[in-house]
Amino acid sequence: MIRIALDAMGSDKAPQVEVEGAAEALKELPPEFQLQLVGRKAEIEAALSRAGGDIDRSRIEIVDAPDVVGMGDKPLAAIRGKPRSSIAVGLGLQQKEKSDAFISAGNTGAVMAASTLLLRLHPGVQRAAIGALFPSAGQPVLVVDGGASIDCDARELVGFAHLGSVYARDVLGRPNPTVGLLNIGEEDEKGNAVVKEAHQLLKQTPGINYIGNIEGRDIPVGEARGQRLDVVTCDGFVGNVVLKFYESAGRVFVSLIKREAPDVLQRPEMANVLKVLDYATYGGAPLLGVQGVVIICHGASPAEAIKNAIRVAVQAVRSHLSDDIAAEFAHDGKIPA
Amino acid sequence: MIRIALDAMGSDKAPQVEVEGAAEALKELPPEFQLQLVGRKAEIEAALSRAGGDIDRSRIEIVDAPDVVGMGDKPLAAIRGKPRSSIAVGLGLQQKEKSDAFISAGNTGAVMAASTLLLRLHPGVQRAAIGALFPSAGQPVLVVDGGASIDCDARELVGFAHLGSVYARDVLGRPNPTVGLLNIGEEDEKGNAVVKEAHQLLKQTPGINYIGNIEGRDIPVGEARGQRLDVVTCDGFVGNVVLKFYESAGRVFVSLIKREAPDVLQRPEMANVLKVLDYATYGGAPLLGVQGVVIICHGASPAEAIKNAIRVAVQAVRSHLSDDIAAEFAHDGKIPA
Repeated sequence: MIRIALDAMGSDKAPQVEVEGAAEALKELPPEFQLQLVGRKAEIEAALSRAGGDIDRSRIEIVDAPDVVGMGDKPLAAIRGKPRSSIAVGLGLQQKEKSDAFISAGNTGAVMAASTLLLRLHPGVQRAAIGALFPSAGQPVLVVDGGASIDCDARELVGFAHLGSVYARDVLGRPNPTVGLLNIGEEDEKGNAVVKEAHQLLKQTPGINYIGNIEGRDIPVGEARGQRLDVVTCDGFVGNVVLKFYESAGRVFVSLIKREAPDVLQRPEMANVLKVLDYATYGGAPLLGVQGVVIICHGASPAEAIKNAIRVAVQAVRSHLSDDIAAEFAHDGKIPA
Repeated sequence: MIRIALDAMGSDKAPQVEVEGAAEALKELPPEFQLQLVGRKAEIEAALSRAGGDIDRSRIEIVDAPDVVGMGDKPLAAIRGKPRSSIAVGLGLQQKEKSDAFISAGNTGAVMAASTLLLRLHPGVQRAAIGALFPSAGQPVLVVDGGASIDCDARELVGFAHLGSVYARDVLGRPNPTVGLLNIGEEDEKGNAVVKEAHQLLKQTPGINYIGNIEGRDIPVGEARGQRLDVVTCDGFVGNVVLKFYESAGRVFVSLIKREAPDVLQRPEMANVLKVLDYATYGGAPLLGVQGVVIICHGASPAEAIKNAIRVAVQAVRSHLSDDIAAEFAHDGKIPA
């Protein structure tokens, strides 16, 4: 049996969207998968009743967690002060090997802090990183780090290249993923001090399909240096700025079309265009490097995003992502000293 | 008389688009403005002939410069090795007070290096910065620095806030421009070490209308913290990554619509939407901090972008941008020690 724990209190419309997303996911998942809804039991029960009769209750376990971490709570204080929160309880299940994955649309900082505290990092992993999937004209591009770790040194950027490569192989189905280093030019001498050093390290790192420096323009195209771009490694500061910029630009663009030519949005052919714009809010982003599987969703996630995040978690568990990351970092010499 | 020097050899389609842009600009400019076309005399003459008869040749001076800096040339080596390049000659005119502004769509690194060498920075300015204008749902947002200076310290980010504020007042017509610090969250404790320090400095800096930390999502909206966002200060690394990402995302989006629903692009109401997407390539970006006026254009600039860059240069000269920057930095105590 494989058990996926879902923070039922995380999103802006919790627990309703979580319950609806769970119900939809169960329809597609094989019988060996079970969902653990973590949160205030009475509220979850009520949401299950509202969601209607076609939910397979035998595959849902409710795990009571009376406290809720708010979006404005300070992460560390929230984790220490609310040990019975849905985040702490949900991750605690995985820590005690009573669960195989944890999904939350709640306070991202609190989920990251609690994951690192409770699950700990794999030996050899220096910093955790968020894998943010950017839509592109081709295949989506995985940007690591999307905001978990800032002020990174060069060796940490190499670590993100490893984390992203394993995830791209296991979950995105890319057997030999290319890795680019986010920079402001392609030439060797371009970049800030950390990036210049990382570029030299990455060129010598075995096991990484490093294609070199890439630029911001390459991400929306999905190609760099004549190849498909699978993984981009960068400091969480720049990754987070670009991620939020991108999501917002997509929303602004859609709202401009709505204002100027609203019927265009109804055109069936536009679905393929618009999908690219709000893809980012429709999945879950893995927190990579911790011992276990943690998927972080947007606070504004609709039920469909929760369902997609469950699918991502399932793929991560099935592919043994966490074991594969452990193995990647256990290999001596993978990161040049 | 006001003289605007234009690098006629800069763009991918030089000198034709430069000559056409110059011809268009002259039709709108009052008689006291004169253009100096800098580059290979014979090629410029030929382009002028091709451009046809309605060019007021009495207001165009051709300044011969036999060397051309290529897009792949190393900036410093190119400036030192090609003293008779259009970039060096064009900036030399301003250095010798024979010109009031310089515009180039050539090698950006070479233009920056030559500007700093020949014109020098204003006293008190630590680093030069590119002011990149981002379209938004509201007014365009000026991001400083767009890629001239990386590995900045906190005081340099305060300097960019001053440079951007003067430009917003003089050229964008915003009397009391707001300034936001690009960060990954709004709270005081967010950010990398440099940004956290810059946030504290900016709060104490007189003469800056500082509204606090802003996020990547605020730029496309054009608002932050409930106010119109005029100027964003950031390290040139992140500014350049976001700028290139933005330009590329716009192109990708248009190409997706072209593939899926090509007639949508022909709709007249869509012009207002599409304008927002390629605005960035249609102007010139000022290099701020040098003693003089320097406007940098995209290598792929069409004639219309050259014309717009000339208009920007004219506005910078008319508003005494360079003097105003000198005055801003001459005030003791503007940047906390």
